[in-house]
Amino acid sequence: MQLDNATPEQLQQWEAELSQQYAQLQAQSLNLDLTRGKPSAEQLSLSDDLDGILQGNYLAADGTDTRNYGGLEGIAEARQLGANILGVDAANVLAGGNSSLTMMFQAVQFAYEYGLTGAESAWGKLENAKFLCPVPGYDRHFSVCEQVGIELVTVPMLATGPDMDKVEAMLKADQQIVGMWCVPKYSNPTGVVYSDETVERIALLAKIANPNFRVFWDNAYCVHDLIDNPPQLANIAEACARAGTEDSVLQFASTSKITHAGSGVAFMAASAANLAGFKKALGNCTIGPDKVNQLRHMRLLPDMAALQAHMQKHADIIKPRFSSVLENLSRAFDGTDLGSWEKPVGGYFISFDTRPGCARAVVKLAAEAGVKLTPAGATFPYGQDPADRNIRIAPTVPTVGDVDKAMKVFEVCVKLASVRAQLA
Amino acid sequence: MQLDNATPEQLQQWEAELSQQYAQLQAQSLNLDLTRGKPSAEQLSLSDDLDGILQGNYLAADGTDTRNYGGLEGIAEARQLGANILGVDAANVLAGGNSSLTMMFQAVQFAYEYGLTGAESAWGKLENAKFLCPVPGYDRHFSVCEQVGIELVTVPMLATGPDMDKVEAMLKADQQIVGMWCVPKYSNPTGVVYSDETVERIALLAKIANPNFRVFWDNAYCVHDLIDNPPQLANIAEACARAGTEDSVLQFASTSKITHAGSGVAFMAASAANLAGFKKALGNCTIGPDKVNQLRHMRLLPDMAALQAHMQKHADIIKPRFSSVLENLSRAFDGTDLGSWEKPVGGYFISFDTRPGCARAVVKLAAEAGVKLTPAGATFPYGQDPADRNIRIAPTVPTVGDVDKAMKVFEVCVKLASVRAQLA
Repeated sequence: MQLDNATPEQLQQWEAELSQQYAQLQAQSLNLDLTRGKPSAEQLSLSDDLDGILQGNYLAADGTDTRNYGGLEGIAEARQLGANILGVDAANVLAGGNSSLTMMFQAVQFAYEYGLTGAESAWGKLENAKFLCPVPGYDRHFSVCEQVGIELVTVPMLATGPDMDKVEAMLKADQQIVGMWCVPKYSNPTGVVYSDETVERIALLAKIANPNFRVFWDNAYCVHDLIDNPPQLANIAEACARAGTEDSVLQFASTSKITHAGSGVAFMAASAANLAGFKKALGNCTIGPDKVNQLRHMRLLPDMAALQAHMQKHADIIKPRFSSVLENLSRAFDGTDLGSWEKPVGGYFISFDTRPGCARAVVKLAAEAGVKLTPAGATFPYGQDPADRNIRIAPTVPTVGDVDKAMKVFEVCVKLASVRAQLA
Repeated sequence: MQLDNATPEQLQQWEAELSQQYAQLQAQSLNLDLTRGKPSAEQLSLSDDLDGILQGNYLAADGTDTRNYGGLEGIAEARQLGANILGVDAANVLAGGNSSLTMMFQAVQFAYEYGLTGAESAWGKLENAKFLCPVPGYDRHFSVCEQVGIELVTVPMLATGPDMDKVEAMLKADQQIVGMWCVPKYSNPTGVVYSDETVERIALLAKIANPNFRVFWDNAYCVHDLIDNPPQLANIAEACARAGTEDSVLQFASTSKITHAGSGVAFMAASAANLAGFKKALGNCTIGPDKVNQLRHMRLLPDMAALQAHMQKHADIIKPRFSSVLENLSRAFDGTDLGSWEKPVGGYFISFDTRPGCARAVVKLAAEAGVKLTPAGATFPYGQDPADRNIRIAPTVPTVGDVDKAMKVFEVCVKLASVRAQLA
């Protein structure tokens, strides 16, 4: 199907055929959901040994009684796990509570209100602090900034990561830009892995940006590969060390999509100066994270080999769902001018770009045929996708059979919305 | 020993005798610690069944899979436990993570930066927002305000709670006062329980205060009684309901000193309007609390009867330590003019007021004789006890024998510092 060269008669005929197919799908009264970027119950069960794993021994390796108060930085072995995941020294890692989003919020807010390196560094002193958001991106990153009062400005995502020519030009031109959101591996939602060149260029941004500029490197899917020889993300901390820009990047990760999504351990990695500023404020918010839960995690995942074996089990569950989405997209849209998509080999999302102006219509059609999709626009700041193109597909929760059914509905909805838009 | 009427010769003689006693104590090379307001290992072990208690069943009563994301308010049964503890409806309760301090910080910060009832209500819009701090009080309450940028003003604690005549006068005179810290039962550190009249008067403060004034009712020791017929704290929520001031109080509690101190469940109770404002900001900081840990707690403490039986075991451990402190104080200082103290029947602290200008000297003498005490001044904002009188004694962690030894050192240090001050 090629719409650009189709005659009005051809479009009319397609519209009629697709409308009929759509009506048949509606008659099935489906109730399917591709919105939820969370693990399935089957995945969660992989970690059910967490409960009871301590067998009465609540002592960390250094003898710390994890049950009591204290230990703002987390227990040593949990910090080491975070360090291994993020490719940094354990001294640069905090192991926290159940939410890396909370750590990111705290980092944004502390940097805005109090400054990470002294009161003079507080972003709130600027007239109009802004964050760069590669789009499509993660809505909860955007809402952190909205809550704190930081303006969101967008930059396009390419297959190599953010469009670095534009990023550099924007940072040079506007010193009110104090931060940038990045999901560098299996980006939410496009699934791309930042190229080595992109990582190198990001490590150099501090040289042209506002002196208090910080990259928020949310490596949420760092160990969430679906294939045996996955793409390797370059090490941003090492790139920064080479460039002398260690203070410009804050890294985040968590076990939320490794163990139990709501009950995991979050990590933050940063330079000594950033950690000192962060801990100064953090110490006034809490006496410390849940160290017992950190210890449970260390007993379940004592080293990287155990972690990788565990992630392989996740991959075994997720991969057929990803394959179903990608095979359906390929079958339906290869060789057409109806849309484009990346082919992620990890993470939680596949992102589909319709023809301009069709995403909302597709989501609406799908909903009316019993298939819930993430609201169009959700992957853009303020919910506004200027081209109305991007749709995020999250296939981990439904069964493989349901993913397949949902994608067949998706196909008809994309085609129908596209043809109708062309006719309009 | 009465210093006020003592002759110089008598004081000289006491000084010589006490110096000798002190030297003997120093020779013992003690290493004792009365600083830590936290549970002992023996207390923590009361809750060791938490690990493994789920026995593979991670479903909340309503079928929620606690392992996954979501549920900003906490699981229903945990909210009900918080409601029972705080004497409110479950609909008015949030069950959170491992730290009520974090919830208090969030409430202060959200109210300051964003406003709990709309942007116009934000305390940060005032020229100089202030909090009333009954003193002596809890240093971590003070540091929350310091972090957020709120000035601390003090009001004296009496045996009935804060000096309400002064509180009312201050609130009338100064509309920049937007909050007040309260630990209403077994107050940290004096151990007093607010009288019924005090609670009634606190519920009426909204009628004279800044319209966005909030009482932070940190009921940290609400179920932490040491005797069979403990004093009953009047219900602040009911008092507010009668007065029509429901929005003026935010209540907090946690299981930190019930189960595992660092791995418990925190609660916040508030009016519908306050909760709506709080959740609006909270939802941008987290996807939800650790529901698995909440469920563990509900299996260990399914109802108030179980909770009370559990707290009785804590009391059995703590009571001999409190008795040792109180008996030593009574033996050493009854009928003297060397100091005064309350006799708490619950909580974690006993607070001793020396003669003016002696607290720092006592803490220093004790340290040099191997007994660590909380730094003098720590119970006052900015670490400044204007009369240099208050010393917080925290006896839960050491053994009963060590508490006794430490109190005998304390006795000599108080006497020696007092005599020397009188001689100076």
